[in-house]
Amino acid sequence: MRVVVLSGGVGGARFVQGVVGAVPADDVTVVGNVGDDVEVLGLHVSPDLDSILYALAGLNDEERGWGRAGETWRVLETVAALNGETWFRLGDLDLGVHLVRTQALRAGEPLSRVIARIADELGVGTRLLPATDDRLRTWIGTGAGEFPFQEWFVSRGHRDEVDALRFEGAETAAPAPGVLEALAQADLLLLAPSNPYVSIAPILAVGEIRAAVAARTVPCVAVSPLIAGRAVKGPADRMLARLAGGTSPAHVARCYEGLIDALVVDEADAGDLDGLGDVRPIVARTLMVDGDARRRLAEAALGAVPA
Amino acid sequence: MRVVVLSGGVGGARFVQGVVGAVPADDVTVVGNVGDDVEVLGLHVSPDLDSILYALAGLNDEERGWGRAGETWRVLETVAALNGETWFRLGDLDLGVHLVRTQALRAGEPLSRVIARIADELGVGTRLLPATDDRLRTWIGTGAGEFPFQEWFVSRGHRDEVDALRFEGAETAAPAPGVLEALAQADLLLLAPSNPYVSIAPILAVGEIRAAVAARTVPCVAVSPLIAGRAVKGPADRMLARLAGGTSPAHVARCYEGLIDALVVDEADAGDLDGLGDVRPIVARTLMVDGDARRRLAEAALGAVPA
Repeated sequence: MRVVVLSGGVGGARFVQGVVGAVPADDVTVVGNVGDDVEVLGLHVSPDLDSILYALAGLNDEERGWGRAGETWRVLETVAALNGETWFRLGDLDLGVHLVRTQALRAGEPLSRVIARIADELGVGTRLLPATDDRLRTWIGTGAGEFPFQEWFVSRGHRDEVDALRFEGAETAAPAPGVLEALAQADLLLLAPSNPYVSIAPILAVGEIRAAVAARTVPCVAVSPLIAGRAVKGPADRMLARLAGGTSPAHVARCYEGLIDALVVDEADAGDLDGLGDVRPIVARTLMVDGDARRRLAEAALGAVPA
Repeated sequence: MRVVVLSGGVGGARFVQGVVGAVPADDVTVVGNVGDDVEVLGLHVSPDLDSILYALAGLNDEERGWGRAGETWRVLETVAALNGETWFRLGDLDLGVHLVRTQALRAGEPLSRVIARIADELGVGTRLLPATDDRLRTWIGTGAGEFPFQEWFVSRGHRDEVDALRFEGAETAAPAPGVLEALAQADLLLLAPSNPYVSIAPILAVGEIRAAVAARTVPCVAVSPLIAGRAVKGPADRMLARLAGGTSPAHVARCYEGLIDALVVDEADAGDLDGLGDVRPIVARTLMVDGDARRRLAEAALGAVPA
């Protein structure tokens, strides 16, 4: 069974681990968000793609929840001593990846090829594609002004309520090579339990990707990132409450209107399934505490396809 | 007494430490070589300027002889794991400096200002100026071809005999702001015991610097980098033998024809002072084993000016 997963960062990466635990790794294609890519210290950082790579390579820091296990901060300490740019926490191990990627991008290599090369060197067998090789950046509109995603998320600690989102470059962005082919050949499409607005929407903002998902002939299953109406981490619940008018499964489903056939919701939300319309609910435990929980959640989503 | 020192990397940096130990730090201006600057992993590395900065800030690794004390290599290990560029050994602490510098240069800040800012943050009270803010690169002509300096020096371990040197960009390079003023106001000019061909010559290749030194009205004293005709480290002796026809004090002096009034030579060379012409020999111990030795060597050179 060939599966395509649209995924954001840490939560999505954990879900992808589960998918790869449930189906052969080389039947899985992950399409990752690049809307929160950012230039830090002159380096091109792709936080979501790297979270997925690190998770699939077993290099991620489970406890901290982001970045690499055994990370150190020697470079950033020097940068701090020189009064340089330190708002975005780049560890030493992480920086190695950013340096290699940035050098390759500057030499004209497309992001998708750089990521494929890095994945290969890290021994990752699952195909990871950026949504696009073109520049696409998420901007967050708030009462305090419009901010680049990472400035809002990291520097301002996502405290400003979100009024609007803008995906700079999306109008002209083309899907990265392989994305449309993977979508066309898939037996199942999955939307990871990532933030619908800032993780999945920037992927779907690429017109041809959205059109391909809308025109699918196979099931598309989203996994809700909320449990009992609350985000496990991050601002997804606040954003849904403000932008969708609520945090029920139906509100999550509305973020993906016309794009999904089923929604995996947590057991805690099983009593709140009104308003889903054509979207079939799949009730499961969605908290991805460990490898088993991730695999079981993936299996619940994969169950949408008749064996 | 205002002093200007023209200096290359590690040996020059040690001499500069001695000068700063002998005269007040803010009476000293160091003009550093940028001919061996290099782009590594997309970062602008200035090995000679950094060696001087690290030495003056007390951050240098005395034992290894280059780079920073307590250095670690976490970033480069990651780069190696990704099959990236690792031929030039960049440590984690060192990389912090390269990242800050490169980001500033890309934003349009001239190298001299970046270096002044870094020096300031490191608490270095001595003024360090690059010879030029313009691009100037040393190329090494050998029987095996012409190589950028660091490729010859690091990658090829400076094993190829040198037939010719070329200073790319020197014809149009202007002295960095402050260099000509410092030379005009100095009471003494010093050429550090650096390699005359690859450390001092690239500085003098900037036409206005060479002209200012040639037209000096104050003494200019060079310190020979050779002891008993041998380099303490590096290829200076082999280069002198091949390019100047010998390694005596007279051969060293000839590298600086018309530019120096005195040459500090080691006690081991005191018996070999023929052919110096107008250049006055100053015999001293030149091996800079520790702070005292560096200061005494500086004092020997400084003695060229009547108190």
